[in-house]
Amino acid sequence: TGKCSALTMHDVIPKNYQKLVCEWHSPEQLKKLLDLELRDRGEPESEILQRCRDAIRYSVKTSHPRFFNQLYAGMEPYSMVASFIAEAVKTNLYTYEVAPVFTLMEDAVLRKMIKVIGWEEGGDGIFNPGGSLSNIYAVNLARYRYCPDFKEVGMFSAPRLVILTSQECHYSISKGAALMGIGTKNVYTVPTDERGRMIPSALEEKIKLAKSEGAVPFMVNATAGTTVLGAFDPIDEIADICEKHNLWLHVDACWGGAAIMSKKHKHLLKGIHRVDSVAWNPHKMLMASLQCSAFLVRDKTSLLQRCHSARASYLFQQDKFYDVSYDTGDKSVQCSRKPDAFKFWLMWKALGSRELEQRVDRALAMARYLAEEIKKREGFRLVLEPEFANVCFWYLPPSLRNLPESPELWKKLHTVAPVVKQRMMKTGSMMTGYQPLGEKANFFRMVVISPQVSRQDLDFVLDEIHNLGKDL
Amino acid sequence: TGKCSALTMHDVIPKNYQKLVCEWHSPEQLKKLLDLELRDRGEPESEILQRCRDAIRYSVKTSHPRFFNQLYAGMEPYSMVASFIAEAVKTNLYTYEVAPVFTLMEDAVLRKMIKVIGWEEGGDGIFNPGGSLSNIYAVNLARYRYCPDFKEVGMFSAPRLVILTSQECHYSISKGAALMGIGTKNVYTVPTDERGRMIPSALEEKIKLAKSEGAVPFMVNATAGTTVLGAFDPIDEIADICEKHNLWLHVDACWGGAAIMSKKHKHLLKGIHRVDSVAWNPHKMLMASLQCSAFLVRDKTSLLQRCHSARASYLFQQDKFYDVSYDTGDKSVQCSRKPDAFKFWLMWKALGSRELEQRVDRALAMARYLAEEIKKREGFRLVLEPEFANVCFWYLPPSLRNLPESPELWKKLHTVAPVVKQRMMKTGSMMTGYQPLGEKANFFRMVVISPQVSRQDLDFVLDEIHNLGKDL
Repeated sequence: TGKCSALTMHDVIPKNYQKLVCEWHSPEQLKKLLDLELRDRGEPESEILQRCRDAIRYSVKTSHPRFFNQLYAGMEPYSMVASFIAEAVKTNLYTYEVAPVFTLMEDAVLRKMIKVIGWEEGGDGIFNPGGSLSNIYAVNLARYRYCPDFKEVGMFSAPRLVILTSQECHYSISKGAALMGIGTKNVYTVPTDERGRMIPSALEEKIKLAKSEGAVPFMVNATAGTTVLGAFDPIDEIADICEKHNLWLHVDACWGGAAIMSKKHKHLLKGIHRVDSVAWNPHKMLMASLQCSAFLVRDKTSLLQRCHSARASYLFQQDKFYDVSYDTGDKSVQCSRKPDAFKFWLMWKALGSRELEQRVDRALAMARYLAEEIKKREGFRLVLEPEFANVCFWYLPPSLRNLPESPELWKKLHTVAPVVKQRMMKTGSMMTGYQPLGEKANFFRMVVISPQVSRQDLDFVLDEIHNLGKDL
Repeated sequence: TGKCSALTMHDVIPKNYQKLVCEWHSPEQLKKLLDLELRDRGEPESEILQRCRDAIRYSVKTSHPRFFNQLYAGMEPYSMVASFIAEAVKTNLYTYEVAPVFTLMEDAVLRKMIKVIGWEEGGDGIFNPGGSLSNIYAVNLARYRYCPDFKEVGMFSAPRLVILTSQECHYSISKGAALMGIGTKNVYTVPTDERGRMIPSALEEKIKLAKSEGAVPFMVNATAGTTVLGAFDPIDEIADICEKHNLWLHVDACWGGAAIMSKKHKHLLKGIHRVDSVAWNPHKMLMASLQCSAFLVRDKTSLLQRCHSARASYLFQQDKFYDVSYDTGDKSVQCSRKPDAFKFWLMWKALGSRELEQRVDRALAMARYLAEEIKKREGFRLVLEPEFANVCFWYLPPSLRNLPESPELWKKLHTVAPVVKQRMMKTGSMMTGYQPLGEKANFFRMVVISPQVSRQDLDFVLDEIHNLGKDL
């Protein structure tokens, strides 16, 4: 399991909190336990220490090997050390003068990620507080390339702009379109195939549709690793279409970007060297501390800086004594910005690309193991064969197993996952998510990332879901 | 100096790094010292430990009592502990189920801040990664209130929208306008008086101007504590104008919001109980760990949620077993979001409102001390009498002291601060910022926040600037 075994869960999490993933209390109960009120007088240190213990105790143990509720999990000790250092040195990344080390580290990490992506001429980039902002940056850059004047004059006399993305894409594309004055209705959703991948011919139809309406399609968002199914849109075929229609191609690889570290799995992202921008969150599968989200752009003409800059004279003085191209703050729409790149730099330095590759391979092998177990077990049914680390499945309690396929069965099945989830939270034995998808009734989604998770943990998950739901 | 003396700088910063604020190296030199390259193979732990030491060594010591370069400084031990815990428990704030403790703490801190502001009917809010995003949220909410349809259809058939703000406002208003499709030219800047405060009659003129052009003014941004001069726009008078014209009034109190904690200084924010939204960064004067930025809105009709929500079915399921109004994630345009409120909650709990008040009073007393010293010293000249914690001044080397007031004097003086700053960085003895402002030649801006700063440190600053610049 590689180097990270040098530090185990046992070192990181206090012993008495090991057993449970969470200790559930309703909001009303927990408010009483925490005594949240802020008063005129402070409290003595012993009291504060107890409040720290309580904050830890009642928080969900996201590093617990049975936490599978989100697209992040586990503890990466090197990255955690980096995040502690970053907190202690209290650095904001606006200028080289105030953040010399982290400015250079961010540059080094971005260059390396760009190299891994395969942009041979290089590129540019920035770390953002979360992948949603990276996707929003992509929309902004695509719009700026289409018409730089919008930055100054706004979009009031602009033609109607249209973004194309699959129906399975992350909601940040919609949120971004709303924020940016483009509007959620101008996000045209392209149908997906049975595995959740964008259908290229359907993309081309939607582009033609938008044009026939007099609208202007200006960018396509392809998703590499959709949130629920873990599907990869076919980047190469989409790139052909974008070239033909001169559209900005962004890849939301926040979740699936890690696959590019693996010789075995990088085919999932085939064609990514051709795209204009990429969002990739090392805090997901690569387990960097929260948050660690890179936005990468292939442009080499300072598009990022030109699109976002405001040239504040109190921060980005041009009469400085050093090369001010190292002052990266004006590439961001933020002012204060955390040195998140350091959390990835230090762990990459410690582990090397090979160990990162092995972790990706291991995570996908674990997903495969879980899928095979599900196929073997009575009462479990895969939603689809996993292409990536997302394993989606239904659990059918014995009472439903002999019912014929019918709307009634699915209606009943839809109510099972929420009840199992409620019981799971109340026992605190594990955590995993569930959701409906299109016509599909509520199903569980498991994602295995952390090297601290064993096959026994996965067997436990299936046993436990059965135990929690067998009477339903 | 209050409770924080229990933990001093000596406990927090390794002894050998105490003397210098920074150890300057050019980007090229520092790249060599750090060996930034990321390789296939990882490095042994001893090497990684050295890399951690180097990252600390070459980083600027922003907690050093002679660091005055930004609007944050010093070390708040309770807040730092909270930030370590937040890193270790690895929590993202989307839902109550995954972040029970921090969801409730955020709610408690927001309620308390709302109470302090004086919104007697309550309100809503969220913590953001930096004040720029809070200001952007304000613009988005103001626009949504003006016309909720923009969220869906975009602004393509909208009338030209106009934001009004003072010429001294933070650049995030422009950046936000660009990002949101409003355009930087539709940010109308209102002239300020000799102290940098928005002139209400000029605001009214600009509103009329916009209307006469057929544009639609929809919000005013008032600044409470401008970045350079620390000026406070007259909120009460501006609120009268906004009421008359039915405009959203936002107050960017990222920097100056702390004054409201002090009975002595809260008059600076007179009228804030009347405004629609406030951005307030406890990571600035109140010294919470980076980042800690609150956005507060007086609305009680879920405007924040309605404006930003995307209702992702995999995260915000409506068939959960608990009250889903505690799932606050859909109020944000982010998906992953850090539990920054905890960093303020823990220190407030430990210090109480009274100690926070004393810190504000002390910071402003120190600014007053520094201003008086500047007035006493030959060769130093205040740019203006400080109204808040910003002390802006010129240093005139002896060679310039006997020159008559003339454009030539100011031209020469303009070159002094950059050279002094360069020498300051290279000796590492202290750090403070400089900038021009409008017609004003480059001047220094000092901001004293931290209780760890003594009068001796301020005397040192003035001595040192003289030592570094006397030959110019």
